[in-house]
Order: sequence, then structure tokens, then C-alpha cells
Amino acid sequence: MNLVVYLAGQIHDNWREEFKEKAKQMQLPLTFVAPMENHERSDNIGEEILGTQPNSYYKDEAASKINNLRTHVLLEKSDVVIALFGEKYKQWNSAMDAATAIAKNKPLILIRPETLHHPLKEISEKAQVTVETVDQALKALSYIFESE
Amino acid sequence: MNLVVYLAGQIHDNWREEFKEKAKQMQLPLTFVAPMENHERSDNIGEEILGTQPNSYYKDEAASKINNLRTHVLLEKSDVVIALFGEKYKQWNSAMDAATAIAKNKPLILIRPETLHHPLKEISEKAQVTVETVDQALKALSYIFESE
Amino acid sequence: MNLVVYLAGQIHDNWREEFKEKAKQMQLPLTFVAPMENHERSDNIGEEILGTQPNSYYKDEAASKINNLRTHVLLEKSDVVIALFGEKYKQWNSAMDAATAIAKNKPLILIRPETLHHPLKEISEKAQVTVETVDQALKALSYIFESE
Amino acid sequence: MNLVVYLAGQIHDNWREEFKEKAKQMQLPLTFVAPMENHERSDNIGEEILGTQPNSYYKDEAASKINNLRTHVLLEKSDVVIALFGEKYKQWNSAMDAATAIAKNKPLILIRPETLHHPLKEISEKAQVTVETVDQALKALSYIFESE
Amino acid sequence: MNLVVYLAGQIHDNWREEFKEKAKQMQLPLTFVAPMENHERSDNIGEEILGTQPNSYYKDEAASKINNLRTHVLLEKSDVVIALFGEKYKQWNSAMDAATAIAKNKPLILIRPETLHHPLKEISEKAQVTVETVDQALKALSYIFESE
Amino acid sequence: MNLVVYLAGQIHDNWREEFKEKAKQMQLPLTFVAPMENHERSDNIGEEILGTQPNSYYKDEAASKINNLRTHVLLEKSDVVIALFGEKYKQWNSAMDAATAIAKNKPLILIRPETLHHPLKEISEKAQVTVETVDQALKALSYIFESE
Amino acid sequence: MNLVVYLAGQIHDNWREEFKEKAKQMQLPLTFVAPMENHERSDNIGEEILGTQPNSYYKDEAASKINNLRTHVLLEKSDVVIALFGEKYKQWNSAMDAATAIAKNKPLILIRPETLHHPLKEISEKAQVTVETVDQALKALSYIFESE
Amino acid sequence: MNLVVYLAGQIHDNWREEFKEKAKQMQLPLTFVAPMENHERSDNIGEEILGTQPNSYYKDEAASKINNLRTHVLLEKSDVVIALFGEKYKQWNSAMDAATAIAKNKPLILIRPETLHHPLKEISEKAQVTVETVDQALKALSYIFESE
Repeated sequence: MNLVVYLAGQIHDNWREEFKEKAKQMQLPLTFVAPMENHERSDNIGEEILGTQPNSYYKDEAASKINNLRTHVLLEKSDVVIALFGEKYKQWNSAMDAATAIAKNKPLILIRPETLHHPLKEISEKAQVTVETVDQALKALSYIFESE
Repeated sequence: MNLVVYLAGQIHDNWREEFKEKAKQMQLPLTFVAPMENHERSDNIGEEILGTQPNSYYKDEAASKINNLRTHVLLEKSDVVIALFGEKYKQWNSAMDAATAIAKNKPLILIRPETLHHPLKEISEKAQVTVETVDQALKALSYIFESE
Repeated sequence: MNLVVYLAGQIHDNWREEFKEKAKQMQLPLTFVAPMENHERSDNIGEEILGTQPNSYYKDEAASKINNLRTHVLLEKSDVVIALFGEKYKQWNSAMDAATAIAKNKPLILIRPETLHHPLKEISEKAQVTVETVDQALKALSYIFESE
Repeated sequence: MNLVVYLAGQIHDNWREEFKEKAKQMQLPLTFVAPMENHERSDNIGEEILGTQPNSYYKDEAASKINNLRTHVLLEKSDVVIALFGEKYKQWNSAMDAATAIAKNKPLILIRPETLHHPLKEISEKAQVTVETVDQALKALSYIFESE
Repeated sequence: MNLVVYLAGQIHDNWREEFKEKAKQMQLPLTFVAPMENHERSDNIGEEILGTQPNSYYKDEAASKINNLRTHVLLEKSDVVIALFGEKYKQWNSAMDAATAIAKNKPLILIRPETLHHPLKEISEKAQVTVETVDQALKALSYIFESE
Repeated sequence: MNLVVYLAGQIHDNWREEFKEKAKQMQLPLTFVAPMENHERSDNIGEEILGTQPNSYYKDEAASKINNLRTHVLLEKSDVVIALFGEKYKQWNSAMDAATAIAKNKPLILIRPETLHHPLKEISEKAQVTVETVDQALKALSYIFESE
Repeated sequence: MNLVVYLAGQIHDNWREEFKEKAKQMQLPLTFVAPMENHERSDNIGEEILGTQPNSYYKDEAASKINNLRTHVLLEKSDVVIALFGEKYKQWNSAMDAATAIAKNKPLILIRPETLHHPLKEISEKAQVTVETVDQALKALSYIFESE
Repeated sequence: MNLVVYLAGQIHDNWREEFKEKAKQMQLPLTFVAPMENHERSDNIGEEILGTQPNSYYKDEAASKINNLRTHVLLEKSDVVIALFGEKYKQWNSAMDAATAIAKNKPLILIRPETLHHPLKEISEKAQVTVETVDQALKALSYIFESE
């Protein structure tokens, strides 16, 4: 049995690479999907496909359509969603992906530093598990496959 | 035909009172529901019901359970969701309510200052309408009932 | 038992008024909802709420958001959908409303002149009943309430 | 991860062949399904299976049953729906397939010449992305699979 | 709390009148809906609304569309479905209504003479309760409302 | 806005009467439904309706059908489910009602003495809130309606 | 793309073998599932697994549980349902399977002799296609896979 | 066709090993999933991943989150659920898994000694089949795949 894991959350460091690499070392039967991690490409994809837009407002609107196409398709395919929140940025996309997962009955593992405990408390309560590190999230995923 | 409108979003000013008052003046057949607007009460409700908790971490966890009970029930009852984002705060609960509404096929009207356009662009793209003021949101609701 | 009936279809003549008037005469317990019937208002509502847009393309985009807000809410509330197609115009909104009704398991009564039989044959096959006149549609609705 | 893409829309030119050929060149992991593209066969399939019908009206009715069997099964299997509208014809089947996709939570990519912007504006607003060319639609699909 | 009860099943005797009359005497808060009980009217309704059809085959097809419109709407509105099978006739409509109720998660009370036990055994197993008389079905409905 | 509250759980003391009485004193807009609280009646209802059964095994089977008819209908109607577990008995019906509520997306408030914490920990984790007393559950319900 | 086809309907002749054999000759990518075709085994399976029952009534009840387990699992797995009705027998299981398929949004192909047109007219109207022979049903399935 | 079978129920003896071994001998195309069977590991997994908790209450809470993550994912993947109840223990997790399966339309096979018939009667009535031994459950599963 293979599971598809959607890696929602911030795209400002390489946590997804770390996640995938460690999962590989643990030989977990997981396929990973994620939003576009290249921030610049994510911001420019609208104009790249739809052409130059009147101004930055419409550039953003165009980009969000293509980004949401990607996340919609990949989130639908996933069995478990991981959402990692960092100290910086608004990260409203991460909150949106996390809440969408819950509403669609896909279990959510929330990763966040304890400093974010208070503002994330309601999302955390809806998550299946809340942890602080990538290693903890991997152990939780690993437990799904464990047999005596 | 009466509609139930859930007023998600920040709880740091009295925008909901303004919203309800104006809807009343416009004689729109709307019933309003919302998360707890009293911030202090929202933070303390867990301990008030479940008793004193070991520390602030568990106090938050207790509070989030009661707050999510309320929002779960009221969001299920609503026909349209309004989410207002302000300049300050993380507002992850607002993002969670907004995304939950969309995932449950309830149309979302997003209210936010244009300065928040970029970080909210993906939620905005999923919203049915994005506006900047309470008056605009009310006009959109009013249009649902309009007849020649 | 009261039923909510959504009157989809062309907005270029007063068929809805005829429909409602006759239903009233027949004393059917029906509540009618519909898309905006004032074509000009439907085209301008986007700019009226969201302000002047860069050009007619964006004016249309703004209008469609408000129109879809209205139709989404009202279609969800309905028990039966009537869609009337006329000889003129593309009427793609009518086709969209008709197909949405079917996909959401709401029975569709299609009204169209027999001249449109061929291009509408697949929608007609998915409709519960296809008729040619308002009177026939009303008789079908009336039959739901009939008792010996 | 392989995706199934349903190619709705006009059947009067060979755009689907172009689409598939280019997807192959781009090595995208896509499986394509579509309504019957042979217009004559689509019109005659009812009589071919169910026998000669009383007149052209019933011939159409028979054909629509078999065509809808095919589209129902294939649309259910798809992850993304592409709908291409051309300048000519009513294309109500395309509108029906597009609206069905949206109602079933499958993202829609709409392809249409800008000249059709106004009559298609409400369907366009519900689509995930609206483009003008096959190449743009393919770039959007390709973006789903992209990784750094 | 009022419940809507759909009375599926044979239309060849007046069991529904007996059912409603006894429910009234028991002062149960029930609203009853049912397929058309007038067999002749049920057979002719297609031609009455859609006009004379080429032959009896098409007359039946027309009638079935209007009858299914009625049953679709009323079954959707119901909380409990009663299906009564008699000794005579094929009663495939009754079986269809019974199975539709079960598939839509509406509890089914099956009424049938014990002589029909064998051919109805699989439907009976899916029913919530199987009884032999109207009085038993009414006692089961009455039990829902009972309080000490 | 009125809410329907299903009172699942043990039927061996009068906790439901206490619950309803206190809710009335608090003037909460709640309608209460529940499984049959009269244990003897619950055990005998099968034979009362379906006649004497071959032995106690079949008597139980008959009773469970009528009891499940009642709980199915009433649970579907409810907005919130309360499940109270006591020290004694297996209470598997209570666990079944609690899990059904959760699977149907109805928030669960679990009431249990802390001594049952360990064996109920997985149900408790799926519940929206776990409390120890009727008063606490009522405060949580009351919080849903509170406004400044 | 492979499709799973559930062959509902009478179990008194070898029509399923004919169906499968012809599908093989046509090289259609179909997997077939079906209820138990051995009538005697179907009637005895309850006692075989659950032991001798008090009488034939309970023997039937036991058998129906195991038969419904099989049909529930296999129907859920299927993409298309074929239901064949013959001249003899009540065939209420076939009607149940047919109606369940429709309620679960799986297209139904109905095979029946024209002599059964009248009593099956409402099921026929809900079916996607109604034919008279196995060959016609196979042609309809084949059309799903056809490409120019 | 391969089926996924979830083995819910007590974790105090090696019934699952017996089940799997016999299924293998019968060459049934089944994949088995289950909750964690190592009781100690199940109780400690929360602290192993989330770190030492303040006390045994919170240790339990942490463990239940990880256990529910596992069961949620695996239950969603399953086609049939087996739940075995033994004489001892509360087994509320087993009741929860059984009821969740039923609410999600997955057929349940209940295994329990006849001594537990009375307290389990309502769950038994909702189960598709109730048996007393592993061998009987395997025969029922085997029947799904049987062909003449």
C-alpha cells in the first residue's frame, strides 16, 4: 500500500527536500506532491501562460489561477496532508491548504515551532497531530505502516 | 427566503456590528452568525468550562476546542460566508473559516484592504467575490434578493 | 409542502412573469428564484459594486462574479430547476445552470421550441422532462402535488 | 502520478489530435478521454444500436442516450476537464460537460477565442483557468507536474 | 419535530388512505407523500402533458418521465420510506423506490405478506424493519416519537 | 436559530431529564432527541411490534431493528450529539452513536468520569470536546449562542 | 483504461457467460463482476456459513446477508451496471441492483424483452440506455472506448 | 480484483495472524490493514513522537492522536471491515471502528462469541453479517470472489 502525501506550507526553505530525503532513507512507501516551491516561478506563472497583464494586481490574479489549478488537482490525489508553518510571512495559502484538507476528510499533520502555538491553536485542534519537527511528522507517517 | 450569513474574520474591531446594522437598514432577510467576538472570552472559555489547565499551552488547547465547536455548528448552518481580513495579526482562523466554506461549497465573499492583495491572492481566487468594504459586501448580498 | 423552483434560461422576454402568474392562478405552493432578469443590470453589476474596471473584459469578469454568487446561492436552495431556451443567443448560462442542476441531483424540466431539439438533445436526455411551453412545465409541477 | 484529462468541446476540427500530439512531445503523464469526435457517427450511433427509429426526433433521442453513456463514464474517470469552444455552433454539449465538471469538483480549463469572452463570462468565472490556445492549456497542465 | 414519510408500493388498493387515517388517529406528527395512486392517471399523464404519442410504447415513455419527476422530488423530501408489496403484479417501481431510499440513507420499512418472504429476502435484509401490516409499520413510526 | 441535540449514552439513570431541565432554565433554544430511555421497553419493542420470537436471540434481533430505526432518524435530524458514558455496562450503543455522529460530521460532546479516560481516549480524541459533567456540556452548548 | 462492469439480473440462464465471451472476442478492456449465479448455492450460503437455521424463513434471512455482502462490495467497485430482466420470476433483486446503481450515479444499461416494456417503464426511464439484447449492450459498452 | 480488509477489534490475542494465514492458504486476493496490535507500543507512541507528557492523562491524549491518524488513513483505504469482539475489556475502539465503517458505507462483518449477543445487538443489526469465528468470516469474504 502506497500513500500520497501533500506537503503544504512555506516555500522559503528546503524543508520538503529534507522530508523526502529522510522518507527515502526510512524506505516509506510514500509519493510526495506539493505546491510550486520556486517562489519566483509561482509569482510569474500567470503571465508566463496568460501573457503580460495590465498591472501587478492582475499579474497576481493570473498566477493564483494556475497555482490553484495545481494545488486542487494534487490535494485531491493525496491521502495525508502535512502543513509546515514557519516564523515569518502570512502563510495564508498554507492555512487554506490545511483547512481544505480537513474539510475533505484528509488527516492533517501540522508542523510548527511552539512559538506559533497561540495563533495556530484552532487549526492545531482540527489537525490530527501537531508536531514541531520534520522528524516527528515522519515518525507519525511511519507508524501507519508499522507491523509487528 | 431567508439566508444565514457567517461573519468570519478579525475580531479586533466592531465591523460585524456595522455589518448587521446596515443590513437591517437595507431590510435584507439575513440571519447573522459568527465566531465569538470577545477576544478575552474566546481565550478563556476553555478554562471556564474545563477548569484550570496546567499552563498556557493547555489553556489554549482547551479554548480552541470550545471555539471550534461553535464555529463548526454555525458554519454548517450558513448559506454564505463573509471573511474580513485586516492589516494586523496572523488571522489564521479567518483563513481556516474561509477555506472551510469553499470546500463545503458555500460561496465566500472576501473583504480585505488592497494592501493585502498579494498574500491573499490564492484565497481571493477561490472566493466568489473579493471586495474592500463592508458596503460592497452588503450590495453583493442584496443583489441575491433583487427582483425587477 | 412548499417547493423552491429555479427559473433558469433566457432573460430576453417576460416568460418568468407568465410562469409565476399562472402558478399563482393554479395555487401551486411554489417559491420562485431566478438569475437577474434585467440584462443591463446583470451586465453592469460588477462595476456598480467593484468600481470602474480597466476595460470591458474586466467589466465582464466583475459582473460574472456577482451573477454567479446569486445563482450559486439560489440554485442550492431549489428543489426543481426549469430551463427555458429560446431561438436566439448562445444561452450558455442556461446550459450551465441546467447541467449544474442535473449534477446536483435536482430534477430539470427543459422548455424549448422543437426547432432546438437537435442541438439540445444531450441536455434533453439528461433532463427529467422536456416540453415546449410554460403551460406544460406548470402541469408537470402541478402533478407533483396532486392527490386523489 | 498519471492524470486523466477529458477533452470536452467542439468536434468540428482536429484540436484534440493536436492536443494529444503536443502532450506526447512534452512527455506529460496524461491519459486522454473525450466524447465521440466523429460527428456523423455520434449522430447515427442511436439507430446503429437501437435500430431504425420512427423519425429524426427519435433518432436524436436514441443517439443522445449512447453519447451520454460514454461521456458520463469518461467524465467520472477524469481528474481535469478541458473545454474548447469555437466560433461556430451552439456547443451546448460543451457547456454541459464544462458545468458538470465544475459541479463535480473537477477543475476546468476553458479554451476559447477572446471574441467569445462575453457570452462565456459566467462559465469562464467558474473555470479554474481560461485561455485562448491549446498551447496555453498544455502549459497549465505541465505546471501541475513541475518540480525544481 | 415533524417527519415526512414516503408511501411507496402498490397502487391497487386503498392502503395509503388507511395508513394516513390511522396515523391521524394516533396523532403522529407525519406528513405523507406518495407516487400518483390513480393508476389510470399515472398511465395517461405523459400524453396529457406532452401530447399524443406515436404509439403505446412512447405513451409509456412519456408517462414515466412525469411519474419519475414526482417521485424524485418527493422521495428527496422524505425522512422515512414505507414500501408495501402485494401478492399481485411485478411492482418493480416499488422495488426501485425501496432501493433508492436505502441508497440515499433513508430508513425503509417494508410491508409484505409472509408469502413474499423468499423473493423479497434481499430487499428485506436491507430494509430497517420488515412487517406484515400497516398497523405494525405505524407502531414502528410511533416508537420514534415516544418519550417516557 | 434553534439546534437539535441528540442525547446518546447510558439509559440507566435520569441524566437526560437533568439535562433538559437545566437547558430550559438557561433558556437555550434546543430541541432534544434521544434513543428510547426505558430499558425494558427498548428490550421488548421488537416482540411488541413483530410478535413473539422463537427465543431471546431473535427477540433481541427484532428489538434492535426498531431501536435502530429510531436512532437513525433522530441522529440524522440532529446538529450536535452528546454522548454520556457511565462507570458500568458495555455501552456499545453509545460508542456506536458517538462514532456515527463523528463520521457524519456532527460535532460530539463526550461526557464521562475521568476514570474512563484511558479506555475512551480514542473516541475522546475524535470528539469536539470531552467533559465530566452535564453542566459543562450545557455551558459548551450555551457558548454557541452567546453574543456580546 | 479498464472498466468494471456489474452484471445484475436474472440467474436462470447463462446470459452472463455469453456476455463475457463476446466481450472477450471484441477485446474490450472490461472486468466483470456479478451476484452469485448458482441459484442453489445462493439460497444455501447462509446456512453453509452460519449453520442450520430454525426454519426456511431464517435460512433465507441468513442467505440474504451473505448475498448482500457480495453485491454491496462488487457494485461499489463497478463503473457501469448491466441489468437483464427475463420474462419469468419477480426479479426484485435485479430491480434493487438497478435502482442502487442509479442512486449511486453509476450508469445503467437495461436489457429486457419488449414485452416487459410497460412494467419496467419507470426503471427504463432512469436507465441510461434500454436495449433488448446482449449484443446491443455490448455495442453500447464498446462505443465508450471507440476512437477514430 | 483485490480487496483491502481492515481488521478492527481486540488486540489481546493473535487472531489477526490466524486470519491472514488462513486467507493466504485460501489464496484470497486480500490486503490486510489494522490498528497497531502491539498494545504497549500503542500506549507509548504518543510520548515516543511528541515527547514526555505532563502525566498519564496527557500521555494517553498524545497516543490517541497517533493511533487515530493510523486508523483514519487505513480505514479510508479499506473495502470491507472485520470487527472482532472478545469477552474481556471495554473495546470501545472496536465499536468506534465498526460504526465508522458502517457510516462510511463499508460493509462490516462482526465476529463475536454468542455470549456477547445482547450488548452488541444494535451494532450487529447494522453489520452486514455477524459470525462467531474467524473461519466463518473468511468463508463470507471468499464468497465475494466465487464464480462457477
